[in-house]
Amino acid sequence: MARVSQAHLDARRRQILDGAARCFARNGFHATSMQDVLKEVDLSAGAVYRYFSGKEELIVAIVGEVLGQVREGFEEATRNSPPPPPDLLVSSVMSRVLATKESVTVDGRPAFPRLVIQVWTETLRNDELAALLREGYGTVQETWTRIVQAYQDAGMMRSDVNPDHVARTMMAAAMGFLAQQALFGPAPVEVLRDGLRALMSVQDHSSVNLLETRSN
Amino acid sequence: MARVSQAHLDARRRQILDGAARCFARNGFHATSMQDVLKEVDLSAGAVYRYFSGKEELIVAIVGEVLGQVREGFEEATRNSPPPPPDLLVSSVMSRVLATKESVTVDGRPAFPRLVIQVWTETLRNDELAALLREGYGTVQETWTRIVQAYQDAGMMRSDVNPDHVARTMMAAAMGFLAQQALFGPAPVEVLRDGLRALMSVQDHSSVNLLETRSN
Repeated sequence: MARVSQAHLDARRRQILDGAARCFARNGFHATSMQDVLKEVDLSAGAVYRYFSGKEELIVAIVGEVLGQVREGFEEATRNSPPPPPDLLVSSVMSRVLATKESVTVDGRPAFPRLVIQVWTETLRNDELAALLREGYGTVQETWTRIVQAYQDAGMMRSDVNPDHVARTMMAAAMGFLAQQALFGPAPVEVLRDGLRALMSVQDHSSVNLLETRSN
Repeated sequence: MARVSQAHLDARRRQILDGAARCFARNGFHATSMQDVLKEVDLSAGAVYRYFSGKEELIVAIVGEVLGQVREGFEEATRNSPPPPPDLLVSSVMSRVLATKESVTVDGRPAFPRLVIQVWTETLRNDELAALLREGYGTVQETWTRIVQAYQDAGMMRSDVNPDHVARTMMAAAMGFLAQQALFGPAPVEVLRDGLRALMSVQDHSSVNLLETRSN
């Protein structure tokens, strides 16, 4: 067998992962066969199975890659102390993740958001994938929790709220924003950035007053 | 045929919808047959088909019902002017929707969040459902946009951000919060309420300063 360069191996791997992502985004995991993937990437079974043993491994590789991008996005964005405020942080990580998957399209639209909701649904009956996702989200949540603590330590955010709740809420905004793109089409990340920014401008005392009034 | 009361008809309809919701949440739409639904609700085909012509109609009825709950939740919450701040508004609507579906469980866990992500995925290949969801979300988005304008008019929120972007962001937070429950299990709505509340306390000028520094 001819020796091939690492760059060639990497490009081939990329080609297979992107093709599989397109198939999954288009038809879902159940309706996609390895035959569909082979056809999509225009490679022989031998060429593909050299990299991935089957659909499961493809899904796991794609999910792992995305979670890696999210992690790197956070690491890059939080190199400074205190970290950038939530509106800038969420939108910079989201931009990074969307950009790496930008070239993978289905019917002329980005495949990534559709893939994300397919993965979520798939976890309902795939325990291995569910565990992988739980672990990956757990890591993101820990990172967010540390960032929230840094906001609170720097006096940027009220410190009487559980950082974990803030972490979950920030992740919810990002997850929901992706779901919206799958359902209603692409939207620039500035929508989410500006929405968070406006939320940050709401006078906090109003809600505190309401609660105080109620408990009187 | 014996005459039956409206209350009986309503209860029977409820029984079928809840049973179908459990089936869909458990196995997804594709893997669920009308036979599965009949077995789940323990009724004859004749009894069920009297209410719903098939799976499609069941899905559409369930989605319509949830969207109706969201709408009513907003109407109730925004009867006062200015509307309650975002943290209270989101959590009250979310509580209401979760409460009405609380009794519908799968494996001892609420079926509703699982059903939501199944519906999202189903829209990718069901144009009728996609159109229904787009219309329903469009209505929710309009309502949110009006609420954001009321915040801005009342001086509760900065007015230089497009209300539509804020509306999308608030909906994203709610949608992502539901997705998290499907993926990682139930969480009290107070998590989202407190997360939004903390976000509202972030000093807005920090992001504005950052942008100003960059453009210099």
